[in-house]
Amino acid sequence: MKIDTLINARWIAPVTDGDPVLEGHAVAIKDGRILELPTQSRAAEKYRANQVHDLSEHLVIPGLINAHTHAAMSLFRGLADDLPLMTWLNDHIWPAEQRWAREEFIADGTRLAAAEMLRGGVTCFNDMYFFPDVTARVVESAGMRAVVGLILIDFPSAWAENPDEYLERGLALHDRLRDRATLHTAFAPHAPYSVSDAPLARVAKLAAELNIPVHMHVHETDDEIRMGLERYAMRPLARLERLGLLDSSLVGVHMTHLQDDEITAYANAGGHVVHCPESNLKLASGFCPVQRLLDAGVNVALGTDSAASNNDLDMLGEMRTAALLGKGVAGDAAALPAEQALRMATINGARALGIAAETGSLEKGKAADITAIDLSHLNTRPLYHPISQLIYASHRNQVSDVWVAGRQVLRQGRLTTLDETAIRVKSGEWQQRLQELA
Amino acid sequence: MKIDTLINARWIAPVTDGDPVLEGHAVAIKDGRILELPTQSRAAEKYRANQVHDLSEHLVIPGLINAHTHAAMSLFRGLADDLPLMTWLNDHIWPAEQRWAREEFIADGTRLAAAEMLRGGVTCFNDMYFFPDVTARVVESAGMRAVVGLILIDFPSAWAENPDEYLERGLALHDRLRDRATLHTAFAPHAPYSVSDAPLARVAKLAAELNIPVHMHVHETDDEIRMGLERYAMRPLARLERLGLLDSSLVGVHMTHLQDDEITAYANAGGHVVHCPESNLKLASGFCPVQRLLDAGVNVALGTDSAASNNDLDMLGEMRTAALLGKGVAGDAAALPAEQALRMATINGARALGIAAETGSLEKGKAADITAIDLSHLNTRPLYHPISQLIYASHRNQVSDVWVAGRQVLRQGRLTTLDETAIRVKSGEWQQRLQELA
Repeated sequence: MKIDTLINARWIAPVTDGDPVLEGHAVAIKDGRILELPTQSRAAEKYRANQVHDLSEHLVIPGLINAHTHAAMSLFRGLADDLPLMTWLNDHIWPAEQRWAREEFIADGTRLAAAEMLRGGVTCFNDMYFFPDVTARVVESAGMRAVVGLILIDFPSAWAENPDEYLERGLALHDRLRDRATLHTAFAPHAPYSVSDAPLARVAKLAAELNIPVHMHVHETDDEIRMGLERYAMRPLARLERLGLLDSSLVGVHMTHLQDDEITAYANAGGHVVHCPESNLKLASGFCPVQRLLDAGVNVALGTDSAASNNDLDMLGEMRTAALLGKGVAGDAAALPAEQALRMATINGARALGIAAETGSLEKGKAADITAIDLSHLNTRPLYHPISQLIYASHRNQVSDVWVAGRQVLRQGRLTTLDETAIRVKSGEWQQRLQELA
Repeated sequence: MKIDTLINARWIAPVTDGDPVLEGHAVAIKDGRILELPTQSRAAEKYRANQVHDLSEHLVIPGLINAHTHAAMSLFRGLADDLPLMTWLNDHIWPAEQRWAREEFIADGTRLAAAEMLRGGVTCFNDMYFFPDVTARVVESAGMRAVVGLILIDFPSAWAENPDEYLERGLALHDRLRDRATLHTAFAPHAPYSVSDAPLARVAKLAAELNIPVHMHVHETDDEIRMGLERYAMRPLARLERLGLLDSSLVGVHMTHLQDDEITAYANAGGHVVHCPESNLKLASGFCPVQRLLDAGVNVALGTDSAASNNDLDMLGEMRTAALLGKGVAGDAAALPAEQALRMATINGARALGIAAETGSLEKGKAADITAIDLSHLNTRPLYHPISQLIYASHRNQVSDVWVAGRQVLRQGRLTTLDETAIRVKSGEWQQRLQELA
């Protein structure tokens, strides 16, 4: 049988319910989709592929899913570090956004972010930012997958004047993206403290109608909860429940401050959590009780947050931090094992974003979103357990090849869809402009 | 004036009390020592160098100091992860050590570790393991700097039968290494729970006589403190004080469980702490109160611990984890800023190990232990603050060039003193042997 691509890999971690690691298997790809994961000898008999990749020292995994970021903010990377959260936001990030967050900035920033993510094995990201139409355009030209957030916030911006306009523009974009294979949408109300009741209630209704997720910062900090209590006389999660938002479409990001009854209610409602350990540490937001959430049956995905509060978009590194911190916070070295971290960064992300039928694991029928990591480097030797090595010892410079929907977007460490030199030049120009103002 | 080496760097972070970052300066090196850090134009007038390095996109820092590791254990990397501490030690690490920790294992493991560390910009490490004579030999042939631990533990091993023999062999090694420029020694009693009173009291006396540090795991876990209370009716730190060990030669590693009065006593005694954040997380040992220690005036250095509990020897990554976790634990986004993390991994390490006159910062007269990091990669662009970028956004694959005592041991990412292929082959052989037993 003629197929497009055959990837022979030393190890494959399909992230399904079967064997965690297949040795000496292959991924057979046709028309952008996975046909099967046969043994290499079986594949050699059965298939004639246009392209054959022999990855004899590599572990192949589902493309990583960065379940929470603000891609364009990569241009603010390192602009203001080591500052208390409110100083950081009020004196640096928000003024910079007010001044700069326009189409050109979004396009250049998202391109920088997409390049960084693809090189690090991230095939899909869940974004929340102004001008999501620009984000969608850049993602498509990069050959990447994304869930584009239909942003909603009470404050005016260059993208929209008021909540109604945010929603109108968002809905129009949702309609335009309906038939794109690698572009998905989610409502993205910013946070409980920055969106009022009426627009949130409208989101609840619209999300149910359109059957798309609601991506929102929830219980990120103590301050947010204090403000919620002051303004609405209830904790933000209770308010979201009252507004009809606490259900299986909710993708709550951060969730660092949770009472036992909130975890139970969240699990019962089928809500999803996106854990952002590095951003939570860097902004001293608090510690997400990941093991407790997992034990309660909550689907927990993983995100980097933006490069302004991380300061990278490295999901390999984020898995490692999640696995390490998960043990520290649980007080149990057996908590959040390597395989769990890999699930969080792949299939759990796909589930949270409502795209698990399409991506998040390597199985027959799903899109061929695939990442290969070269484990022959000294820092991953010797090698006893490939997934353990991936999480605890490998670095993203070992990501060698990446495919999105069957198309190779990284080939032996080189981007095939994006021009690195041009991106570097643009980043330099923005640095110049932002520095002059600082 | 004729000199050996001139390094022209875009940025230099000397880690002294002066400007944190010099732009457009150079490091002038003669006979393995730093002459000065002149401007590049001044250097061009004044010096004729045998070797000139133009590092136009690079940040140059003092060579990183890994202040706590067990280098040879790199051969156990990933052998047993995600296990509770006592299962990990009793069922995996200790039996493996009992079976394998002989000269050949130590030599091959230390060579693997040295290669990983040099590639990651680490010029010096503080080691604790069996057969420190073998470690010393490998370090010297790698052209690296190390503080070789004169290990002491109650249990017999292939290296020594009993505490007296450990000390005898250690003292003999100390004598043999006296005149080596890049080899230093420290007493290395394993931990309060594994060394009894008499040998510890002897160490206190000997350390004062020889004026070398005492490198020891202290207050690593709750269990250790519980055992100390049961066996000696006092907390381990109190016992060390009673035995005469609590003074400025003490290098206490981990220190995750500390009462306020213990921090005060430790600071008053001038003791040093080695923080190992990733190992502490991975083994769920607890959280070292780094900011509180720093506020109390304690000198805090940084270490990776072994690759069996980390699982890398990446000090760039460890600085990042320390800076992020330090904020999370302190509940303050301004805690443990980037410059502080760099100090911990350089000058503070040198101070703890008693070698600050020789290394740890870039100043006139010190040995030329130097690391250059290429910040032109996409993930470190744009670039507003070089040190911030180093800590929060750079990865160790950006380390391009490394010098130890003026000798270039890494040249454009390639090791000059160690044979990577041979090391990879040896690692494979050990993997084979250890797997057969598992």
